[in-house]
Amino acid sequence: MKKLINLPGLVVSEALHGMQAAHPDLLKVFFDPNYIIRADAPLKGKTAVVSGGGSGHEPMHGGFVGRGMLHAACPGDVFTSPTPDQILAAVKAVDGGAGVLNIVKNYSGDVMNFEMAAELASDEGIKTESVVINDDVAVKDSLYTQGRRGVGATVLAEKICGAASERGYDLKKTAGICRAVNESSRSMGMALTSCTVPAAGKPTFQISENEMEIGIGIHGEPGRERLPLKKASEITGMMMDAVTSDLPYKKGDRVILMLNGMGGTPLIELYLLYGEVYKIAKSKGILISRKLIGNYITSLEMQGFSITLLKADDEMLGLWDDPVLTPALRWGI
Amino acid sequence: MKKLINLPGLVVSEALHGMQAAHPDLLKVFFDPNYIIRADAPLKGKTAVVSGGGSGHEPMHGGFVGRGMLHAACPGDVFTSPTPDQILAAVKAVDGGAGVLNIVKNYSGDVMNFEMAAELASDEGIKTESVVINDDVAVKDSLYTQGRRGVGATVLAEKICGAASERGYDLKKTAGICRAVNESSRSMGMALTSCTVPAAGKPTFQISENEMEIGIGIHGEPGRERLPLKKASEITGMMMDAVTSDLPYKKGDRVILMLNGMGGTPLIELYLLYGEVYKIAKSKGILISRKLIGNYITSLEMQGFSITLLKADDEMLGLWDDPVLTPALRWGI
Repeated sequence: MKKLINLPGLVVSEALHGMQAAHPDLLKVFFDPNYIIRADAPLKGKTAVVSGGGSGHEPMHGGFVGRGMLHAACPGDVFTSPTPDQILAAVKAVDGGAGVLNIVKNYSGDVMNFEMAAELASDEGIKTESVVINDDVAVKDSLYTQGRRGVGATVLAEKICGAASERGYDLKKTAGICRAVNESSRSMGMALTSCTVPAAGKPTFQISENEMEIGIGIHGEPGRERLPLKKASEITGMMMDAVTSDLPYKKGDRVILMLNGMGGTPLIELYLLYGEVYKIAKSKGILISRKLIGNYITSLEMQGFSITLLKADDEMLGLWDDPVLTPALRWGI
Repeated sequence: MKKLINLPGLVVSEALHGMQAAHPDLLKVFFDPNYIIRADAPLKGKTAVVSGGGSGHEPMHGGFVGRGMLHAACPGDVFTSPTPDQILAAVKAVDGGAGVLNIVKNYSGDVMNFEMAAELASDEGIKTESVVINDDVAVKDSLYTQGRRGVGATVLAEKICGAASERGYDLKKTAGICRAVNESSRSMGMALTSCTVPAAGKPTFQISENEMEIGIGIHGEPGRERLPLKKASEITGMMMDAVTSDLPYKKGDRVILMLNGMGGTPLIELYLLYGEVYKIAKSKGILISRKLIGNYITSLEMQGFSITLLKADDEMLGLWDDPVLTPALRWGI
């Protein structure tokens, strides 16, 4: 296993120490249990927005903590759900009296532990709402999931809900926009290579030199099919078809598009892929109103990419454009 | 060869088409010869700042074109110098009458072709100055280089010179700050894996499962030594020693630090490494005043990282903080 680490068991906590050292102006990191909060949290009277999940998907979620996005993130071990006490600690740390929105990716462990944390928070008098993100069209039911997996839409929901909180949306309204984002989002991913979880020490799956996995999950869960490697134009064609047939589009529909690298894909390839996606969107009459191109929800060093399309209305686009200042996303400030 | 491309010979031009489609608000892309300019170039009366080099190092250089940074970038083929006519076309496109600063990484082909372009520009009445960046302490003389290679300091010089231009620094003064940045910068890189140039179709070099290359070049040129893989703390120790012994520091010296991924390194590892670098800097009394952590000067999908330290004065820190709006670096706007 080739990794730039000290010991497999220390990866998450040492990376968190690095984040703390790197961004003291933006965030505070707590240990045992591990969570990250905005440096200025709690914000009195503002709906707090919390997310979390396994580590190994960086910059998600810790890289999205900061002004205009997450109030807190709970990083579990690599590809492992955060624990209820970890989530509870984060929720308590950022509640400003207006309640807490939990944005949860649809993996059985995450859903269960966020539910338990919500009950514990309720016992302590903190109002929470949870929205489960399930935008991955690749497969229904998967290795760690009942129903569809939650992937790229999580990033878009975190940005938009963070902005909603800044604008003063109450808990119910913030949860409402989160649900709307999820309902209007569809994603699909693919991989050329596996990744290696540090504690496992060997690749999560085997894939031969001329194969690719279409519809891969962010933990290397199997996708729709294992195919011979194809050209970028064909791959993007398959993925855009999968995404746009699941939520049909009409001419002139506007989207926030994320073309996301899985962690080991060079940027030159992501731009090449964006060129293909742009042509397909244009041919379908879809307007790419806003975009992210880069590594936002990754699977360690996996080579591959995913496409997320959010059919956006004026409110979502406005919230998207609001200022954001986090380690991984920054504009308007 | 596993890559998300169509044909090896089309990678650069197709990625440029993707950039054009992605960022029409920030930049314009021209083809045959290939170059990228700021959407609002030329800027009358402002010193233009141009850079370029082989592709495969994205976001460098095209991702740094925009307000407050580069006026133009000339991307060669993958790991191949841009041609003189390509550089000349870019220089002519962005000269606003105040002359052009060429920021050149120290590789024999780049230096020669930028020199030829400068002569051709001079024939057309355009004043240019060239500054050659040679910050890599790893080796003296290398596969494509006489003297030291130019690496991470290029990113810092481009940011600082772009800001100098915005402030109205004339050509001589902009070149002066560029030289000062180069003289105060030192870098070193390492790799766990090779990368594969699309046209070659096979890895640039072989490295076994338990080895690393310390002092690697950004094209996979040999470094100082091939060693058994060590812990992150030991690797960063070796690299920080190499960088800080080459340009000695005294307690309280301030630096702009770049901890740069080579393209295939997950962000969780970069943050872990930053934690180690931070501890070492602290123990040496070096103040990390500003930092970049991420993929800025890459080698396709290579796994590895580099450290760049710029001992910065007030002027450099001020120019660093000035607003920048490019595809890859953005703040203050």
